[in-house]
Amino acid sequence: MPSSSLAIGIDKIRGPRQAAEQDQVAVEEPLEIQLCSADARGAAAKSLSVTMRTPGDDIDLTLGFLVGESIIRSIDDVAAIGAVGAVGAADADTGQQNSVRVELAAGVEFDLQRLERHFYTTSSCGVCGKTSLAALRNAQPPARMRSLALRRADLLELPRRLGEQQHVFQSTGGLHAAAAFDASGDLRIVREDVGRHNAVDKVVGALLRERYIPADDHGLLVSGRASFELMQKTLMAGIPMLAAVSAPSSLAVRLAREFDVTLIGFLREDRFNLYAGAQRITE
Amino acid sequence: MPSSSLAIGIDKIRGPRQAAEQDQVAVEEPLEIQLCSADARGAAAKSLSVTMRTPGDDIDLTLGFLVGESIIRSIDDVAAIGAVGAVGAADADTGQQNSVRVELAAGVEFDLQRLERHFYTTSSCGVCGKTSLAALRNAQPPARMRSLALRRADLLELPRRLGEQQHVFQSTGGLHAAAAFDASGDLRIVREDVGRHNAVDKVVGALLRERYIPADDHGLLVSGRASFELMQKTLMAGIPMLAAVSAPSSLAVRLAREFDVTLIGFLREDRFNLYAGAQRITE
Repeated sequence: MPSSSLAIGIDKIRGPRQAAEQDQVAVEEPLEIQLCSADARGAAAKSLSVTMRTPGDDIDLTLGFLVGESIIRSIDDVAAIGAVGAVGAADADTGQQNSVRVELAAGVEFDLQRLERHFYTTSSCGVCGKTSLAALRNAQPPARMRSLALRRADLLELPRRLGEQQHVFQSTGGLHAAAAFDASGDLRIVREDVGRHNAVDKVVGALLRERYIPADDHGLLVSGRASFELMQKTLMAGIPMLAAVSAPSSLAVRLAREFDVTLIGFLREDRFNLYAGAQRITE
Repeated sequence: MPSSSLAIGIDKIRGPRQAAEQDQVAVEEPLEIQLCSADARGAAAKSLSVTMRTPGDDIDLTLGFLVGESIIRSIDDVAAIGAVGAVGAADADTGQQNSVRVELAAGVEFDLQRLERHFYTTSSCGVCGKTSLAALRNAQPPARMRSLALRRADLLELPRRLGEQQHVFQSTGGLHAAAAFDASGDLRIVREDVGRHNAVDKVVGALLRERYIPADDHGLLVSGRASFELMQKTLMAGIPMLAAVSAPSSLAVRLAREFDVTLIGFLREDRFNLYAGAQRITE
């Protein structure tokens, strides 16, 4: 059984107390789905999709994905399916196999062009965490990520302030929110969207129009969880702090530590968890 | 200002009471980002990405997306940006413009091939809701979606049963869950993942291996919100009921009503909202 959670050392803050503890984070790793048709067997499989997932049940994940895409209707449509080894080296940490190859049964057709046209993207990443990390290094994220410092008390105020400004959420209960905050904990830009990443993109776009990217004296607050994808967007905007009301993923923590971004999770009431970048939080 | 929420008629159930009410749902519509470089101006723009988003701040969303993809660093990298009219007819309902076109400034390069390789997909959809609906019709989702009926009391038990089986969530607080339940409200398959859609894919894949697709005597339970994407997966698996602990989006409701899938939202404690397919819920 692959591991779905990973133990890491963090600081837990509750009111005036701070303690170093072990914490469990959900594992996030890329899974590549490779597809080849019966007549093309032996030929190179096509890479159909890469999704960030929690390892485990990878075969089921792949089969279910193909049902949703209307590529298969029955297990008989699949001639063979199996993990085909590591993709890149994200798996060096966990020993995961991050690629599943599917050979369709004779007579089951798929039109890769049609699929590509119909796939929609939510964000970029490499084929695996390692590739993505390399791509981020190549993209040269802003280096001067040290100018922000925030008082603990101001940080704890952020969720309440965000809640006050989530107007659409209040009426629908169905939106994610993201906000850019300054060193006083004031929310300068607040945006809502059905998509977590879209809310963040809207905030970053507004900062860009203000000529405020890299926003290295701002932090980013999100109403949900901190995934690889959100950490990547934070980093590319030159923002040195990501604070999430919910949990971070393993890959978000890894990215934060590598690129020295402050990562805060479970920011609620009088407490939060500090996963990386403690130097930017003051008493 | 485009509208971020939409009023629809639903049934609200609380304990033994049921009342027809108006409810606000968050609007979900596709946004296509088109990109062309300075030297290619006048040439057809390339469709870079389609994301399901809540209309509003579309220019900022596009700019922020391009920052995250490391395509632009400053507003000076953009020669022109603007909405370029409707994509398809999802907008017929709302009057939204669902496409933004970006002309990059001279000297700003982008490598579409690289981008395509690095984009990862989370699911398929058409370029817009209408196209997607057409694609779903072409894919002929299973027609016999009438065999499931569930008692209200059994439905209300589902979230507690799911919570008991969310083992990784209990340790990390960071996972979405999905489950297939039968007509007695028993959870037959439960899966967790950092990605909402992945958890559903894992459940559908397990059903497929059991030769249980179309699963027209099962329902699907999700720990979060009901988006277009999750409704699409429900439909393609031939499952006639989607029950979500949180809110549905406008497009999920539309899809449910068109294809006669029962859609339940805010399933918590002694209450839920019924957005479509009331005939499958009994006293």
